[in-house]
Amino acid sequence: MEERRISKAVIKRLPRYYRYLGEMLNNGVERISSGELSNKMQVTASQIRQDLNNFGGFGQQGYGYNVQYLYDEIGKILGVNTTHPMIIIGGGNFGHALANYDFSKNGFITKAIFDIRPELAGTSIRGIPVLMMDELEEFVEEEQIEIAVLTLPKSKVQEAATRLAACGIKALWNFAHLDLDVPKDVVVENVHLVDSLMQLSYRITSYERPEEAE
Amino acid sequence: MEERRISKAVIKRLPRYYRYLGEMLNNGVERISSGELSNKMQVTASQIRQDLNNFGGFGQQGYGYNVQYLYDEIGKILGVNTTHPMIIIGGGNFGHALANYDFSKNGFITKAIFDIRPELAGTSIRGIPVLMMDELEEFVEEEQIEIAVLTLPKSKVQEAATRLAACGIKALWNFAHLDLDVPKDVVVENVHLVDSLMQLSYRITSYERPEEAE
Repeated sequence: MEERRISKAVIKRLPRYYRYLGEMLNNGVERISSGELSNKMQVTASQIRQDLNNFGGFGQQGYGYNVQYLYDEIGKILGVNTTHPMIIIGGGNFGHALANYDFSKNGFITKAIFDIRPELAGTSIRGIPVLMMDELEEFVEEEQIEIAVLTLPKSKVQEAATRLAACGIKALWNFAHLDLDVPKDVVVENVHLVDSLMQLSYRITSYERPEEAE
Repeated sequence: MEERRISKAVIKRLPRYYRYLGEMLNNGVERISSGELSNKMQVTASQIRQDLNNFGGFGQQGYGYNVQYLYDEIGKILGVNTTHPMIIIGGGNFGHALANYDFSKNGFITKAIFDIRPELAGTSIRGIPVLMMDELEEFVEEEQIEIAVLTLPKSKVQEAATRLAACGIKALWNFAHLDLDVPKDVVVENVHLVDSLMQLSYRITSYERPEEAE
């Protein structure tokens, strides 16, 4: 079968499909047409069909989609049908907030929080132990950690990313406002909050081009 | 002059340009070619030229970009050359973490945090007062708040968004895992953390198509 590279835009829509389908299941909906799905999601029906065709379709002409089946298949595509052991690097406010956020129903299991402050050793957040950075490599290997969440200050994050890449982590979820330099086989997903806030600000701003200025 | 709609992809790259140019300024770089900028940003030089041409160019053939000028103009495009009064709705872990994050150097000034828990009334985070939700409308009007950051649970966030839209807020920065329904003149920028984590998980997952399965 033809191997195609799936575009970023498609991958970005999949979690939304998954979320909406989950809500429908909760509401007892068993079957949905691409038209109805399109209305709910504010994406065109043809876009939905195209997106799903990347993975083999899942619908039947004139019959629509079986919600449970589609939900399960998108779950498999996204890899949320299995568990992903995860650690949080940095036990500050942000790390703390993320530790309190329960990602486990989508398979992301936070196993530990790492910090360098000795006073945090032996403490825990929502039952998740806070460990010291010198225990990192051993823990990642023993617990087969796949994902590390980086909530460190900008000045500390590259060093941590390099250490994590060296001990075989598969993916970094990076909250520091910095693009990381890691080997190509390590996946980096950035959540650059300031960038997001600037995109918001762009949309409430009228820019006057220099040559139009008086 | 021709009015064009700028694509989302361009808008998404602008904050990155801004960030990189800011770092160059800090390092004393005065001038840069689109080729050098391209190397640093891992975006093609022609992409950079195209992106900036949306706003009128800013470069001179064979001369490159003046870093300070380009930085300032992108700042204006993004609207971070002025101040944006902002409030945080929800004083939980996440609201707390965001209150501790200083967005002010990009013009986003957090004026208050709103919550419904009476025990939080009169407290403050980093000098920012925690106010009660019954004070919301008056505060938004008096302080001319432009942006509300929504860190409420999913079940509470639509009601808050509706109230905020009704009292004239310009933009919602939404951290709840839900797409909001608000009037078209209210800008919504979503930070769906679970979606981001799923995009990460997609990239470390091998999906076996149903028809390929045994």
